[in-house]
Amino acid sequence: MRHYIILLGKLALILCCSVQLSWAQETLLVQKQSFEMENFSTFGGKTIKQVKVGWESYGTLNQDKSNVILVTHYFSGNSHAAGKYSQDDAKPGYWDSIIGPGKTIDTNRYFVISVDSLVNLGVHDPHVITTGPASIDPDTGNPYGLTFPVVTIRDFVNVQKAVLTSLGISKLHAVIGASMGSMQALEWATAYPDWVERMISVIGVGQADAWTTLTLEQWATPIRLDQHWNNGNYYQQQAPLDGLTASLMMITQQAMHPDYINALNPQHWPLEPAPLNDINQSHQVVNWLKGAAQARAKIMDANHLLYLVRANQLFVAGHHDKLQQAMKRVKAKCLLLPSDNDLLLMPYMAKELQQALIAAGKSAKLAEISGPMGHLNGVTGISQQRATIAAFLADKD
Amino acid sequence: MRHYIILLGKLALILCCSVQLSWAQETLLVQKQSFEMENFSTFGGKTIKQVKVGWESYGTLNQDKSNVILVTHYFSGNSHAAGKYSQDDAKPGYWDSIIGPGKTIDTNRYFVISVDSLVNLGVHDPHVITTGPASIDPDTGNPYGLTFPVVTIRDFVNVQKAVLTSLGISKLHAVIGASMGSMQALEWATAYPDWVERMISVIGVGQADAWTTLTLEQWATPIRLDQHWNNGNYYQQQAPLDGLTASLMMITQQAMHPDYINALNPQHWPLEPAPLNDINQSHQVVNWLKGAAQARAKIMDANHLLYLVRANQLFVAGHHDKLQQAMKRVKAKCLLLPSDNDLLLMPYMAKELQQALIAAGKSAKLAEISGPMGHLNGVTGISQQRATIAAFLADKD
Repeated sequence: MRHYIILLGKLALILCCSVQLSWAQETLLVQKQSFEMENFSTFGGKTIKQVKVGWESYGTLNQDKSNVILVTHYFSGNSHAAGKYSQDDAKPGYWDSIIGPGKTIDTNRYFVISVDSLVNLGVHDPHVITTGPASIDPDTGNPYGLTFPVVTIRDFVNVQKAVLTSLGISKLHAVIGASMGSMQALEWATAYPDWVERMISVIGVGQADAWTTLTLEQWATPIRLDQHWNNGNYYQQQAPLDGLTASLMMITQQAMHPDYINALNPQHWPLEPAPLNDINQSHQVVNWLKGAAQARAKIMDANHLLYLVRANQLFVAGHHDKLQQAMKRVKAKCLLLPSDNDLLLMPYMAKELQQALIAAGKSAKLAEISGPMGHLNGVTGISQQRATIAAFLADKD
Repeated sequence: MRHYIILLGKLALILCCSVQLSWAQETLLVQKQSFEMENFSTFGGKTIKQVKVGWESYGTLNQDKSNVILVTHYFSGNSHAAGKYSQDDAKPGYWDSIIGPGKTIDTNRYFVISVDSLVNLGVHDPHVITTGPASIDPDTGNPYGLTFPVVTIRDFVNVQKAVLTSLGISKLHAVIGASMGSMQALEWATAYPDWVERMISVIGVGQADAWTTLTLEQWATPIRLDQHWNNGNYYQQQAPLDGLTASLMMITQQAMHPDYINALNPQHWPLEPAPLNDINQSHQVVNWLKGAAQARAKIMDANHLLYLVRANQLFVAGHHDKLQQAMKRVKAKCLLLPSDNDLLLMPYMAKELQQALIAAGKSAKLAEISGPMGHLNGVTGISQQRATIAAFLADKD
């Protein structure tokens, strides 16, 4: 019996080691890089001095620089699309399921790159490098606050273009992005059509319609109502954390779906004693979402959220005419991957974009992602469309 | 030629008169009545003194008091379900398309009655009579504010029961309500099953699930963030109108659908100069919704909104066990009319209620209302289901 246990122990040790080895082989270790520009001219005609953003890459740039895939990130995201900063990281980048050695977006083959957006939400995240209202204005030595100019999705794209150009890149095998990232991907294809060979829009849109503009405004409202917001001047005092938390609670819920929230809270029962007896007490499910939002708020900045909301509200592909006009400029072949139960950027928006592309004589395929998470299916469920994406990238679709 | 014009003029006059006459015949003129109770015991075990609510009725109570249809109202509504207060009113009550002489709910046959809820949102509307945090506490001579006890959907029902009992009524041919009104209708059928012969739940639910509890919390948040809210003590000073306006903007949008909002704003174009150039300026569609909300906020009270949110969050039919248990108590036959593109109380909720009723061996039919308005289809599009409702009320279904 003892011998049997020793044998089992050895077997366990061997199994552990082999798992450890294969884990070490599979873990893509990445590092945040930094890029700086002396002067940046915004789409709105303003100048921002000393723009600094972070970026990450996975895989190796080939000699003729023809193997580049740009990944553009979503509203609360950053350029950490895949891999880990260290073996100890709890989680890898958000699309690690499709980006890496031997994966759908194969880093043995492609040079994958992603750039932290301007006005990035996670400005206090040590792994984010960004420039926005929380940054120091070199002219005054104080944080910009609301003196920072309004920026648009085109500005995010132009910063990425500067990063790519600094690496000698002038062509994208593909650009792929989810949600706000889809706006950037499409903006690339309309603003710089000669750069973009393939465009993948995940849980995406062609423009912010009236409905979406109002939804985005809901996210800005709690921050503006928080007395600590103080018209954006709070960097020397208490930050508007209650407003920011309320905004994040809203964003989190709206990006999900009842199927998911209800399944996560199977114990929910409406007649809880605390909220029944006291108007100032909340249901457990409210406290749960609030706790999660409060934790996230610590690395975020309220003014940055307002500027991100505005960039999204101002989005129409091409930043010029009506959507239909902009579609004529596209040279990339396009793949659209909406989530079928998305409540935030509903599938009708991707379908309208597809129709606009087809009406302009462009190639635009559409396949739906499913799952319980609504909008977030585009992040968590992307691997459902591995085969579609792989075929699209290899022109075998 | 001149003769011809005179003839046309006379014809127009005759047409006008006959339209006028038929209009006068069809317009149901109604009057708000008032009901008062010395003491009211809440479901939560508190006592409210001098509860006063308004009510309206249409049609005549028959001798054996067997022709009563109770209409229970939605979140921002009141007992004005049909008719006009005067010929000059711009609009009749919200369900005038189905309530009136010769209509689906035929006031030549039925005595239709509706009661203003406790903590009614429209407390400053001259046609609303309600008791809530904005009312004077007889013990202190000051407005209750947050000392007003939490009330539930059961409390709304119990106040209605007191009104009905004061008229000698002890049986409902039917109870019908939309949205929050559906909760009251179902609560009637579970709490007082011997009263209720027929129950119609329009855009309705059996309980507030985790998702809905969070959605409702979104509506409360802007009010609590407004510095003028002052923990509910604002009756002697500036009211939290910005928070209330933000809350109403959210409620209005969430009760609608992109099809409707986008169709109403065909001129919307994301790159408007004002919001592009100034972070403190808004898109026209935002200003439009804000203007409408500001106008509505004038007759409403922010604390009342918080108490309504809470009543809805606490709702589970029967106010006792799990939904499935409560369904066993129902004696009424049931008709459920969800809106097929409802984004607020999505159709899955009515379907879950139907399944729970059927599982308990009850009669529960379901028919969907369509239209561009989402949740509000249940108010504006109710006449689509005229035939279904008429057959259900006459037991010809």
